[in-house]
Amino acid sequence: MASPETNRRVLLVKRPTGIPQPDDFGFDHVALEPVGEGRFRVQNLYLSVDPAQRGWASDGTNYAPPVPLGGVMRALAVGVIVESRHADFPSGAHVYGWFGWQDYAVAQPADVLTLFGAPEVPLSAYAGVLGINGLTAYLALDRIGRPEAGETVLVSTAAGAVGSIVGQLARAAGCQVIGLTGDDDKVALCRDRFGYTHAFNYKAGPVETMLAEAAPTGVDIFFDSVGGDMLDAVLRVMRVGGRVVQCGTASVASWVPAPTGLRNEREVLTRRLSWGGFVIFDHQGRFPETMQALVKMIRSGSISYDEDIRHGIEQAPQALVDVYAGRNRGKMLIVPDGAP
Amino acid sequence: MASPETNRRVLLVKRPTGIPQPDDFGFDHVALEPVGEGRFRVQNLYLSVDPAQRGWASDGTNYAPPVPLGGVMRALAVGVIVESRHADFPSGAHVYGWFGWQDYAVAQPADVLTLFGAPEVPLSAYAGVLGINGLTAYLALDRIGRPEAGETVLVSTAAGAVGSIVGQLARAAGCQVIGLTGDDDKVALCRDRFGYTHAFNYKAGPVETMLAEAAPTGVDIFFDSVGGDMLDAVLRVMRVGGRVVQCGTASVASWVPAPTGLRNEREVLTRRLSWGGFVIFDHQGRFPETMQALVKMIRSGSISYDEDIRHGIEQAPQALVDVYAGRNRGKMLIVPDGAP
Repeated sequence: MASPETNRRVLLVKRPTGIPQPDDFGFDHVALEPVGEGRFRVQNLYLSVDPAQRGWASDGTNYAPPVPLGGVMRALAVGVIVESRHADFPSGAHVYGWFGWQDYAVAQPADVLTLFGAPEVPLSAYAGVLGINGLTAYLALDRIGRPEAGETVLVSTAAGAVGSIVGQLARAAGCQVIGLTGDDDKVALCRDRFGYTHAFNYKAGPVETMLAEAAPTGVDIFFDSVGGDMLDAVLRVMRVGGRVVQCGTASVASWVPAPTGLRNEREVLTRRLSWGGFVIFDHQGRFPETMQALVKMIRSGSISYDEDIRHGIEQAPQALVDVYAGRNRGKMLIVPDGAP
Repeated sequence: MASPETNRRVLLVKRPTGIPQPDDFGFDHVALEPVGEGRFRVQNLYLSVDPAQRGWASDGTNYAPPVPLGGVMRALAVGVIVESRHADFPSGAHVYGWFGWQDYAVAQPADVLTLFGAPEVPLSAYAGVLGINGLTAYLALDRIGRPEAGETVLVSTAAGAVGSIVGQLARAAGCQVIGLTGDDDKVALCRDRFGYTHAFNYKAGPVETMLAEAAPTGVDIFFDSVGGDMLDAVLRVMRVGGRVVQCGTASVASWVPAPTGLRNEREVLTRRLSWGGFVIFDHQGRFPETMQALVKMIRSGSISYDEDIRHGIEQAPQALVDVYAGRNRGKMLIVPDGAP
């Protein structure tokens, strides 16, 4: 375990232009800072590794200001409150929120996404399937996708932390669900574990050909986390009235300078698409009810999830690279208990 | 007037690859065909000239099969029933529907968009502000734009048959309304006649600069009928939660081969846009109530509209070219009463 007297931190030391690389990060140890009035100290137990961190580290268009150079890398984490000067956040309570890639954070209420006592499912789940990944899957599918029984739902990054939950939720809603993923092992996982009707390795051939087989009359809902050429191809096989959920753009390595692709406005028009962007942090008011719905599905066995848990805070930068390369098996988490 | 014994027709004789040109069309005179059981003969009084006709004439992606070569050019028209073998469509009633660029059509109920007796406003209005133009403005703004008082609405083709109505409806909803149009006379028309807060000639400089002045905090609703570079620019100044209504793609001359432009999925994501395609023919069930709402606004003077009425069916192809070139002043209509 980390010394209770020091805080190991992962700092952003260079501004990445594309996917952050290990040498964009540095490490330090600092003394624990005092806990001011109205604040509380969180000991991080699971650090989250998320594709969205690329956006937080870059200075391109995004929904949040970039992480300052020299600052602790912005990250979500699940932790336990170990010292408190805020009555609503007592010592011993668990929290999930903006605690950064570090051992300890001095936090305030605005940093917390969810607060809970004894976990109802394994604690790590609160950083993944009950964290932004599962909440995104549930709320984006519900609010933008609006699946109806009998529809065809296509999911990119189908075996990922968000996609694997989308697939299971869409199947539970009575949809035919097609998954696109980047290797054959994940194709098998999609079919055998996550309830996909069809799953394909998108690297094995044109997506158009795969969809011609699996969705000959087109796609009603595209739950997309990758953007790029795959998005362009899928838009051209959407059914009239289809919905496109834009949850990420992971396939496009850099947005500076602005990349080009096929013009898609005529597809939006003629197919009467509804294409919506989703950022989970807009929907915090619906987290408690959504977590309850997900806990029920986990406990009843109707949602499975995988985790790829690595030990040692110094693993975090490489873990992010591995997430972008698709080398993770489930939600990537870091337990910060390695040697300092 | 045309001879009651013959029907002059405008035929599509070549498949246009971009904007239809006069030599894509031919003319003939044929004898009136008999009216079969369940059908009725419509004498066309106003032929409509619409940007959407490019799509109907092309064989690219569209929401309707292309007009067959050698067939009468698909068009909307307002006419009067002059002979009927259908009890619900009596002689003397007025109709607006798919009667084509010709003097007379033998029609069936499925060809009719609206049926009405004595007009409540000038008859030509039923082909424009009470036809697909005004109905599109009203229903697309209502269903996809969802304007709220105080929001900023941007309209492309701001002085056009659809745009001029959108501007007035958005102003009536309490929005700040900005218009983009293609010449200085129309800029003046937007400001003086159609209630725009700001209006600009988009040819006079970068749209970004105009919007930086008129909408420094961004655009909430973009009602777009042009697509292309203007769309790309506007997407980059949309406010979080903005809505994009895609009603046309008039600025892109051809979709074969597929043109390219800036990738827009990251704007959709980070700005949480909701981008929807609108085709008026999906919403026929709401036409009667919408027409009533528009008639009230016309009669109370809260909606103004202009018409560019030309005489002679042989003017129709050039009128379509002029619409694409922005040389019309209001809704383009042809009165088919010229010499045969």
